[in-house]
Amino acid sequence: MNPATPEAARPLGVHSEVGRLRKVLVCSPGLAHRRLTPTNSDDLLFDDVMWVENAQRDHADFVNKLVQRGVEVVELHNLLTETMALPEARAWLLDRKITANEVGLGLIDDTRAFLDSLAPRELTDYLIGGLSTADLPLDVRSGHAALAREGVGAREYLMPPLPNTLYTRDTTCWLYGGVTLNPLYWPARHGETLLMKAVYTHHPDFKDATVWWGDPEQDWGQATFEGGDIMPVGDGVVLMGMSERTSRQAITQVARALFEHGAARHVVVAGMPKLRSAMHLDTVFTFADRDVVTLYPKIMDAVHSFSLRPSDRAPGVEITDEGDTPFTDVVAKALGLPGLRVIETGGDVYASERQQWDSGNNAVALEPGVVFTYDRNTQTNTLLRKAGIEVITIVGAELGRGRGGGHCMTCPLVRDPIDF
Amino acid sequence: MNPATPEAARPLGVHSEVGRLRKVLVCSPGLAHRRLTPTNSDDLLFDDVMWVENAQRDHADFVNKLVQRGVEVVELHNLLTETMALPEARAWLLDRKITANEVGLGLIDDTRAFLDSLAPRELTDYLIGGLSTADLPLDVRSGHAALAREGVGAREYLMPPLPNTLYTRDTTCWLYGGVTLNPLYWPARHGETLLMKAVYTHHPDFKDATVWWGDPEQDWGQATFEGGDIMPVGDGVVLMGMSERTSRQAITQVARALFEHGAARHVVVAGMPKLRSAMHLDTVFTFADRDVVTLYPKIMDAVHSFSLRPSDRAPGVEITDEGDTPFTDVVAKALGLPGLRVIETGGDVYASERQQWDSGNNAVALEPGVVFTYDRNTQTNTLLRKAGIEVITIVGAELGRGRGGGHCMTCPLVRDPIDF
Amino acid sequence: MNPATPEAARPLGVHSEVGRLRKVLVCSPGLAHRRLTPTNSDDLLFDDVMWVENAQRDHADFVNKLVQRGVEVVELHNLLTETMALPEARAWLLDRKITANEVGLGLIDDTRAFLDSLAPRELTDYLIGGLSTADLPLDVRSGHAALAREGVGAREYLMPPLPNTLYTRDTTCWLYGGVTLNPLYWPARHGETLLMKAVYTHHPDFKDATVWWGDPEQDWGQATFEGGDIMPVGDGVVLMGMSERTSRQAITQVARALFEHGAARHVVVAGMPKLRSAMHLDTVFTFADRDVVTLYPKIMDAVHSFSLRPSDRAPGVEITDEGDTPFTDVVAKALGLPGLRVIETGGDVYASERQQWDSGNNAVALEPGVVFTYDRNTQTNTLLRKAGIEVITIVGAELGRGRGGGHCMTCPLVRDPIDF
Amino acid sequence: MNPATPEAARPLGVHSEVGRLRKVLVCSPGLAHRRLTPTNSDDLLFDDVMWVENAQRDHADFVNKLVQRGVEVVELHNLLTETMALPEARAWLLDRKITANEVGLGLIDDTRAFLDSLAPRELTDYLIGGLSTADLPLDVRSGHAALAREGVGAREYLMPPLPNTLYTRDTTCWLYGGVTLNPLYWPARHGETLLMKAVYTHHPDFKDATVWWGDPEQDWGQATFEGGDIMPVGDGVVLMGMSERTSRQAITQVARALFEHGAARHVVVAGMPKLRSAMHLDTVFTFADRDVVTLYPKIMDAVHSFSLRPSDRAPGVEITDEGDTPFTDVVAKALGLPGLRVIETGGDVYASERQQWDSGNNAVALEPGVVFTYDRNTQTNTLLRKAGIEVITIVGAELGRGRGGGHCMTCPLVRDPIDF
Repeated sequence: MNPATPEAARPLGVHSEVGRLRKVLVCSPGLAHRRLTPTNSDDLLFDDVMWVENAQRDHADFVNKLVQRGVEVVELHNLLTETMALPEARAWLLDRKITANEVGLGLIDDTRAFLDSLAPRELTDYLIGGLSTADLPLDVRSGHAALAREGVGAREYLMPPLPNTLYTRDTTCWLYGGVTLNPLYWPARHGETLLMKAVYTHHPDFKDATVWWGDPEQDWGQATFEGGDIMPVGDGVVLMGMSERTSRQAITQVARALFEHGAARHVVVAGMPKLRSAMHLDTVFTFADRDVVTLYPKIMDAVHSFSLRPSDRAPGVEITDEGDTPFTDVVAKALGLPGLRVIETGGDVYASERQQWDSGNNAVALEPGVVFTYDRNTQTNTLLRKAGIEVITIVGAELGRGRGGGHCMTCPLVRDPIDF
Repeated sequence: MNPATPEAARPLGVHSEVGRLRKVLVCSPGLAHRRLTPTNSDDLLFDDVMWVENAQRDHADFVNKLVQRGVEVVELHNLLTETMALPEARAWLLDRKITANEVGLGLIDDTRAFLDSLAPRELTDYLIGGLSTADLPLDVRSGHAALAREGVGAREYLMPPLPNTLYTRDTTCWLYGGVTLNPLYWPARHGETLLMKAVYTHHPDFKDATVWWGDPEQDWGQATFEGGDIMPVGDGVVLMGMSERTSRQAITQVARALFEHGAARHVVVAGMPKLRSAMHLDTVFTFADRDVVTLYPKIMDAVHSFSLRPSDRAPGVEITDEGDTPFTDVVAKALGLPGLRVIETGGDVYASERQQWDSGNNAVALEPGVVFTYDRNTQTNTLLRKAGIEVITIVGAELGRGRGGGHCMTCPLVRDPIDF
Repeated sequence: MNPATPEAARPLGVHSEVGRLRKVLVCSPGLAHRRLTPTNSDDLLFDDVMWVENAQRDHADFVNKLVQRGVEVVELHNLLTETMALPEARAWLLDRKITANEVGLGLIDDTRAFLDSLAPRELTDYLIGGLSTADLPLDVRSGHAALAREGVGAREYLMPPLPNTLYTRDTTCWLYGGVTLNPLYWPARHGETLLMKAVYTHHPDFKDATVWWGDPEQDWGQATFEGGDIMPVGDGVVLMGMSERTSRQAITQVARALFEHGAARHVVVAGMPKLRSAMHLDTVFTFADRDVVTLYPKIMDAVHSFSLRPSDRAPGVEITDEGDTPFTDVVAKALGLPGLRVIETGGDVYASERQQWDSGNNAVALEPGVVFTYDRNTQTNTLLRKAGIEVITIVGAELGRGRGGGHCMTCPLVRDPIDF
Repeated sequence: MNPATPEAARPLGVHSEVGRLRKVLVCSPGLAHRRLTPTNSDDLLFDDVMWVENAQRDHADFVNKLVQRGVEVVELHNLLTETMALPEARAWLLDRKITANEVGLGLIDDTRAFLDSLAPRELTDYLIGGLSTADLPLDVRSGHAALAREGVGAREYLMPPLPNTLYTRDTTCWLYGGVTLNPLYWPARHGETLLMKAVYTHHPDFKDATVWWGDPEQDWGQATFEGGDIMPVGDGVVLMGMSERTSRQAITQVARALFEHGAARHVVVAGMPKLRSAMHLDTVFTFADRDVVTLYPKIMDAVHSFSLRPSDRAPGVEITDEGDTPFTDVVAKALGLPGLRVIETGGDVYASERQQWDSGNNAVALEPGVVFTYDRNTQTNTLLRKAGIEVITIVGAELGRGRGGGHCMTCPLVRDPIDF
């Protein structure tokens, strides 16, 4: 039914993992990735530098395929540019970013003046791509600038580059009819959520959204939460990976918020083994159809599950330890299914480890039975196809170097429910 | 206890690096160090585990030597115990630590009840030593506790251990007549400053202190500041190492605060090379007498200096790039001295690197020409003695494993000025 | 003049870095790269896993471009297959590889029988790709096999995979009229040289080669030597990078051997700074034309040069410290040129670091003024083209993940001299 | 020297793990440890630098306690000095160490002349402590020396320092009536075995020893073997840890050699989990009495056992997979004991991990029921004492920084059998 009905009229909300995807937020590679070097890539959470022009081409192709299938694609640079065109939004954001704690005394006025002189698009490029001391006009460079240039690492920036915006999945999550503004685990990503708050506070299409939880202007301590661990699978159920990046302190708070608003009835927690290759639940487990999942058994077999349900007693969340019951069985039961059909990462012991690493299990569904994955994981893709799934491929040579695939690169804004 | 005047009557304030030390804050090793293991020591910033009983013995000996020389020694466990004996202080601190973001929903009430049942000393042991889920009484362990035990790393704690309190130098700095409550660089140390705020807010001997800058309840962003980099050398001069841990964003703010209050007239910034072995200025440069310093040339030769002075123009701080002038010359000139006498780390190329690593240059002065250092750096100690310095040794076999010496382990509270 | 004269008639020999390339040894990606996983890639010296099918496609395209330009290309799998078709060569090699020290007692006979049952091509695949315990037929698996499977890492193999054969440059070097069989630095690469000795001992096209130095059956101790550091630039001059991988102990021995045979008159040693990104001289410095080099200044500026020349006195090598003279000036003088034209890595501070990392300076010349480089280093390629160099590009997305480019992937067998 | 029989008359041989220790080889800390720095300690396998004078004091105290209990102690510096006093031994060793592959052409004659000018004790100090280019007399420093000084890391030495000689256990193993000369895993330790071969080839007290296996002048490939993994527990049984450092390729060869000579009847292999903290079997499991062991359960529970026994069929070793049978049960059965009494590492989860790390399970027996351990592992020591074991302590503050305890620091030369 897609293009006839204007999407703008459809309220934001994500009601499943595999229902028809209507509208999605993505972020193109750009200046932030041009700043990646072998020296700083670890700090910025990338395993390697990427060829930015080709990454942009491959990302554009992904977007194009989404659009051709009738999905409305919102690109973050564009969205933030529209937001920065609103004077009060621009002032709101720069008041929070151009401070003594970030740019340093003595550089505030000049930096703010420079940024205020820019068109919204240029400003957006620096907001996402980072502003280095070398980007300031020459006449701004006083003793304070000399001191700044003597500094190092993340601090050589007046605003840090945010290359992980590429993975829009993590920063905000639509869970049924509301959204969370997530406190991310790594300091290198903290700046992302403030950009999204600017959008959700000021942009006309977003400012009326219901926010379940989260605010980048508050300190959340150990309560960190990343969308790659979170899946609103439908029917009032939400899966949450408890990982290095997504803590129980956050999970229980979000569960309570959802329960209080009647937005969910059951949160299944996947206690993840603590491995770099399993940073998020969606790096080892995603849905390809109503009852079909692709997963990496070596890690999923070690998951310990818990069920969180509403409770009348404080704190409003009751927790059941699911003991030895396999995660897939807990999920199936929560959805009222007899079981899940499982498609494991393909190939021999080498190939499956390689493909998991290359985001082989990180599928994102367009609609039931139709998913996007990286082209390079040919064996897993073949298994998906043999199981009747339509697989549309994305070129992953450059995009995959931050260890994220199609699921990571998409933040659904509107997705239909599905029947179980 | 030497002089006639009771120390309690003497107002807090540190007016030099080598004037008579009157009162000092230290912290004994304890439960936090018993929690150090090969697995977690990196995260907790220790290079190795220590034998806690021996570290306590060696620390007690250090304290005893200070006391015998007439210094009033305040020990952090004792100070915090006195503070926690005040009901409003206890409530103030636990309200901030026992929250959903830290201990998690469902464990707040039980954890708070447990802690409220403890005597002040026991409570203090957990505040510094950390509270693990296993420390809670057995009947507290519900589904929420099961979920907590499934978590890991720093998060297995309901309150994190703070073994770096051993290095009291870093958390707060007395700079002439006021103090800073420092935002520390590493997350593993953030909890230290809140403990100190509890003291400075509630303890009768501390609550009237003038706070120049810093508040652990605020987010300071890139503005991090550690006492190991800061030296109020006297005569209105302050040295500040700009390092990985102490940023220009903080340095310029503190400098402005000092200038505004007329507390200082000149801040000399040492732009440190970015090396793990040079984490703080005081790991490579300390004073042993009015015009005598001990330093590690391999690193100090690479320092680039800046001078910060008050200015009528915003932001109130004027910065001069000192170019190629050696740091020691900049410091000597600032103090009106013809030069500094320099005692380098002793021994051949191997020995000097070893001794710097073992805190050989991390001397703390009792009074002009009398310093404490670790026993193991025999060659540097000999050079100091040959230069006429009295060297009192501390056993460093265990205490040194967090890479800090006598200067790091002491936070002067009262130190006399000195003439130049 | 290429196809008319049969290449086979032309004797092997490499007489310059940029003279007409006539014949070259390369090695296609294969089974060894299918064995790379995130877990073992560090040990095998790869930064990331690669998509082997695409790497093969890109490598085939490189080969095709060489062939179209008239170069005779020898592929290592083919060459080794031809060699293994000779019974005495097969026996020679397997006698040395299927030993108690390598496969372990109790597995020798079964392993040897299995390998002896294979066709030459299949055998070659395992020789380069590695033989794991799982590759043996099922009936071979006794208690000895169970013990083997309990082992780990490099030892889970009965013959180790050799993915770095991709970089044929390193293992053997033709220097004018003779070749060296190099002792490589990393244990993970030691097996490569023995394969080449099998070729140089048995293959009819290679067995008459003059070997200057090196024998994989001897222990060379600290004397390690890798072709990526070695450049026979012509006119009796050889450049040698003294790096982590190529030691002075080897350099002086090879220089002496060359001098003794009158094969060279001057070895210029580039004392490299010890950085991972500068593992070989050819990762930061290559020739693009008779007097044109492309280099990465950040590293080349730190090179300290020495000249080695023949001497009548023992040990037959006289060494001159070139002091502060820039490496490019020492090289130019050695070649009788007024100077070298230098093309630096292109782009800003980020781009140049990124492009050096992506083998941007690792050009290999087809003939004077015509080079192959990776497509992704667009800025450096543009600078080369502006300087009049013809640049033919290779797709580097997969091939570059072991940190080597066109120069690393080629071992010239026949290259013309050039006039200076 | 307690008993009537002179020790010198008693033939070398180790017939158990806990029978009366008669004669033992140790190595005092010295020059090699003075060369350890934060920069090179990783390469030299030390976790931290040590205070050499105190390490020497603590080691001397250990030796003194051994002597007072009637053990004849042979110190490696002394033993090698005696050996180097023999002209043919000195020539034999220097011919092998002062070669073009090690010191480099152009430095051989001067280096050899310098070493030949030294008294045996001085020469020994350099053989163990390493010879750097700076140690050569000034007049030796030609262009070759300049080139050498430009080199790096392990190569800045003309002979490498061998600080791990402190752990004499690993380099050679007496197994009943014969010895093995072990190929060690890490290149940084390869030089140790050649020194021992000089002793076993030339020293009158050692040259008649039966050598079961091993020769440092041969290349052993994957067959590496370290004494810390090997325990001749008595009654023809030998325990061998199969670890990162001790491979099945070596284990099966040594087993065969022992079986062929009738020196052993059963080798029990402990397949170790691959963890840095479990580098050798004796870091997690040692004997304290005839049927008493101290072990670290977290690692020993993961051991997978195999039994190797003589066989008439090639290769003379039959292997049985012991499946799920606990290692301690396999060992008890092999010795004909109903079971082993097990004393686990003491204390809570933190303490036991800390004590294993600090060599808490690395006991060495003087006689049945009497062991040496480090003082710092007070909880494990208390458990041993409660079980009736006499525990004599060694000061471990400095000696333990290479991660070895009393068992690692002793190579028994004569030890009595024991009845089972």
